[in-house]
Amino acid sequence: MCELLGMECNVPTDITFSFAGLSGRGGRHGPHAHGWGLALYDGNVAHVFREPAPACVSPLASFVRDHPIKTLLAIAHVRRKTRGKISLANTHPFVRELWGRTFVFAHNGTVKRAAELALGGFRPMGQTDSEHAFCALLSALQHDFPAPPSSRDQLAAAIASHAGRIGKQGTFNLLLGDGDQLFARCSTKLHYLIRKAPFRKATLADEDVSVDFAAMTTPRDRVAVVATSPLTRDETWIAGEPDTMWVFRRGKLIETLAS
Amino acid sequence: MCELLGMECNVPTDITFSFAGLSGRGGRHGPHAHGWGLALYDGNVAHVFREPAPACVSPLASFVRDHPIKTLLAIAHVRRKTRGKISLANTHPFVRELWGRTFVFAHNGTVKRAAELALGGFRPMGQTDSEHAFCALLSALQHDFPAPPSSRDQLAAAIASHAGRIGKQGTFNLLLGDGDQLFARCSTKLHYLIRKAPFRKATLADEDVSVDFAAMTTPRDRVAVVATSPLTRDETWIAGEPDTMWVFRRGKLIETLAS
Repeated sequence: MCELLGMECNVPTDITFSFAGLSGRGGRHGPHAHGWGLALYDGNVAHVFREPAPACVSPLASFVRDHPIKTLLAIAHVRRKTRGKISLANTHPFVRELWGRTFVFAHNGTVKRAAELALGGFRPMGQTDSEHAFCALLSALQHDFPAPPSSRDQLAAAIASHAGRIGKQGTFNLLLGDGDQLFARCSTKLHYLIRKAPFRKATLADEDVSVDFAAMTTPRDRVAVVATSPLTRDETWIAGEPDTMWVFRRGKLIETLAS
Repeated sequence: MCELLGMECNVPTDITFSFAGLSGRGGRHGPHAHGWGLALYDGNVAHVFREPAPACVSPLASFVRDHPIKTLLAIAHVRRKTRGKISLANTHPFVRELWGRTFVFAHNGTVKRAAELALGGFRPMGQTDSEHAFCALLSALQHDFPAPPSSRDQLAAAIASHAGRIGKQGTFNLLLGDGDQLFARCSTKLHYLIRKAPFRKATLADEDVSVDFAAMTTPRDRVAVVATSPLTRDETWIAGEPDTMWVFRRGKLIETLAS
């Protein structure tokens, strides 16, 4: 199993505070010591940092915490392996190009018989059920839409439908980004909150680390954060309903679809 | 125009020394200040570090020099833009998955009318002629081989053929890796050397920085290095013939193909 973190905003924001909380679970406060990854979008492409090693002791993870890259959309993951050895190829998030956009994917759970899922133009490079499921999802989207779908609603509906089909075979909590929106499917466990004015102080759940968001924001800022478990102890996180998918855009929850 | 650097070895090797030489050309000793990138393979996937900023002053570039990741195959690039604005999407090397392998590509030169090249399953995310040419090359390979080619020779011949066709429309010096081999096409300017026993000292061409490879190698080690211009002043670099492509595997020049 693993822990997921996503952030989607209306102004470029750094993910340092939340990523510090997640990193602690990558071996210090949690058992997710088999790898970590962080994708930070810049337009329709993304910086991707990944390592098959514990996030809490990684010099590269420290570097990205100490040199924050502001972004509108980020996806992070710490891994406790269930399927597939410890290797870079098996480290989330996974990344592919479709329709000239970067799709970034991270998964919590296990998809049973994932290797039986049909693939089209996308093939796994590692051995995880997660990457196979991601390739099956993108292959299905490419099959449905040889050219990009004409509306965001069409894309969201197709993702919810295919993710729901794939997710029937096990546990399929996932985060998926395309540089424009964040799709977050709850299979068994996922939480979100929206930080907006009036901003307040927040304290990590696992460490005595606080940040006063009022000091670093403007009243118009909106930041949606999605995580497997609440990352802070003094904010109200909303739990997902199983078999639903949230769609976030510009720091807002746009819709919740059956999935 | 840009500068290319590739390294292909029979034992995991760090690229620090050569990358330091290339980084200096990313804004200090050369005009290539519009971006830098470095891909380091780990099996059939790669760490990819890229920034649309000068390599010589980049904290991330310093980090990867100070925390070397040993690899069998690396491709690096510093960019002086000709086509396409300064952005992450336009920063080499470009990366795609084909047949479950990561393909990494970097280009020096300009391909004229690149936008007219036919594309299949691969689409550019940025505006450069380079990325369009890379997508055209992969699309052609995928068309020729829906499943991976059965031999390395078949793959090398197909790459040489398609790269030659694309390269007819301008200047197409390129490095292409698939995690197994390094393909290096010379259109106008490309050099290589093989470091092997007896190892000696080498000094960067642009800076008074030396390294004694004898102190850090074993007699069996072989390291092929490819660069636009010789990176050292006291080693013998071999210049490429226009319209040929070198294939490197396990630190050896395996063949030179017309391209």
